[in-house]
Amino acid sequence: MYPNLQRHAIKLNNLRSLSTTVGAPKSIRIVEVGPRDGLQNEMTIVPTDVKIDFINRLSRTGLQTIEVTSFVSPKWVPQMADNAEVFKGIEKRAGVDYPVLTPNLKGFEAALEVRVKEVAVFGAASESFSQKNVNCSVAESVKRFQSVTDAARKANIKVRGYVSTIIGCPYEGKIKPSAVAKVTELLLNQGCYEISLGDTIGVGTPGTMREMLKEVLKVAPVEKFAVHCHDTYGQALPNILTSLDFGINVVDSSVSGLGGCPYARGASGNAATEDVVYMLDGLGVNTGINLEELVNVGKYICEKINRQSESKVNRAMRRSKSVC
Amino acid sequence: MYPNLQRHAIKLNNLRSLSTTVGAPKSIRIVEVGPRDGLQNEMTIVPTDVKIDFINRLSRTGLQTIEVTSFVSPKWVPQMADNAEVFKGIEKRAGVDYPVLTPNLKGFEAALEVRVKEVAVFGAASESFSQKNVNCSVAESVKRFQSVTDAARKANIKVRGYVSTIIGCPYEGKIKPSAVAKVTELLLNQGCYEISLGDTIGVGTPGTMREMLKEVLKVAPVEKFAVHCHDTYGQALPNILTSLDFGINVVDSSVSGLGGCPYARGASGNAATEDVVYMLDGLGVNTGINLEELVNVGKYICEKINRQSESKVNRAMRRSKSVC
Repeated sequence: MYPNLQRHAIKLNNLRSLSTTVGAPKSIRIVEVGPRDGLQNEMTIVPTDVKIDFINRLSRTGLQTIEVTSFVSPKWVPQMADNAEVFKGIEKRAGVDYPVLTPNLKGFEAALEVRVKEVAVFGAASESFSQKNVNCSVAESVKRFQSVTDAARKANIKVRGYVSTIIGCPYEGKIKPSAVAKVTELLLNQGCYEISLGDTIGVGTPGTMREMLKEVLKVAPVEKFAVHCHDTYGQALPNILTSLDFGINVVDSSVSGLGGCPYARGASGNAATEDVVYMLDGLGVNTGINLEELVNVGKYICEKINRQSESKVNRAMRRSKSVC
Repeated sequence: MYPNLQRHAIKLNNLRSLSTTVGAPKSIRIVEVGPRDGLQNEMTIVPTDVKIDFINRLSRTGLQTIEVTSFVSPKWVPQMADNAEVFKGIEKRAGVDYPVLTPNLKGFEAALEVRVKEVAVFGAASESFSQKNVNCSVAESVKRFQSVTDAARKANIKVRGYVSTIIGCPYEGKIKPSAVAKVTELLLNQGCYEISLGDTIGVGTPGTMREMLKEVLKVAPVEKFAVHCHDTYGQALPNILTSLDFGINVVDSSVSGLGGCPYARGASGNAATEDVVYMLDGLGVNTGINLEELVNVGKYICEKINRQSESKVNRAMRRSKSVC
């Protein structure tokens, strides 16, 4: 009936390389960006005391890094107008870093006043994105951070660099990996200790991620990189998996997938931290995070902003008691 | 400022193996299970003419395989009571296979009457799941298909085997990879030409998928396998990616993620075909499917059953015109 059934080894004929490496790090640091990148892109303005409570709850889940807020003009980002108050109000737990975004010197000085220990700046890989957003070229935009990075060095403050539109840009489409590598190099040369590679509009796949990673890893070692994947096309987890395969061990994500794409209402936000942690737990990769506690924090903030969790793990675990 | 910045190669220290292989097939056959596995688990009963229209539209997207319906008792599955009518009503496009589920001889004979050319049977990897669902052991349940596979052989009809609960079971938790290998071997020995490995409750991760795949690939070559991943915990795409890495080149999915977990209301269904095709397109893996047409079919059926598409690609592409 089935005469040729034998014990076979895995055949490797006719296969193409999925990635250049075959490993995953033993442990991953998650950078929780929900309070900043998440809430900044939500329609609801969250009260200050809720933000503080939210961040304090996140601090107790085992997360090592929580991006707290953004020191930007309240005219542009009203959601973050209470930045100093929030930063002062939160519990500073030992072993947890609380970076903030400071796109200019004014913001940096305000952050310094409340004793921030780590800041972040950002550049785009796309020229059009840079022109539309900050009205100058990518190189010029990075130069503008010089005052921030100089001041940070003097104050012994770590600076993280974000690179946005690493795969695609809403204005010019596909972005060349070499453009990502170029802005990465500029930011590293300016003193950033780590570069978070952001697929801002979530168009990447493991194929395009791989091409991009190959290029940026020519510029600096894997230890210098984090990935920041949006889930607009449902590709955040496979993209993160691909980056682990390259040895990247810092992943940005947002509890319950808070946030959205600022360029499209109703678009998906960041990779949901719960889903990332579930995947990493299953891979035996340590994050130090208690998933059940994280699910509770996701439930808390989603109730406060009156939206459904975008984390499938959150929804599945809260259906618990059910047999699934 | 950043004195040690040099051009580095990817470091491979301190990494653990993510998978045993590093390849993906050049082309993938998608088995669209929306009309059967999908609609069977939706609350809404879909009118026969809508089902026929739905399948005809799917046929025109480039899909090579569409599972049409299930020849089961309407007492148990009222959603599929119109099985013969649907099968007779659809356009049989050249180059497209239209399998149906036939869990027993009665169903098989009914399917034969309407000239079905391929059928499917199913076994569980979990003993408890088998006991709860068909009131007998796994081995006994496979034996019961003997009449179907015997009749199929006589009629020159291909039989596909589903194995459910390959990673976890709602009743007994984690399933041993050896249990999956065992029922796989039984089904292959009974004449199934292909085994679809189903993560019925969507609890798998790339880690547990890998362990399971390593074991079943001892029983038969990779060409004998398909994967059938549910997205309950958001892991369907990374799990599919992992299976590609092993060389598996048949993937079951459901347009717009139709269906759900029959054990939990509101749970996510199958991997959404649109999201799978988007990922494969990005990997340069050929599916023969026109993604835009597929998105339109997803929109069509979701409107008919009055639910939101569970495909992020579908939602993102339909927001088009928007800059994202």
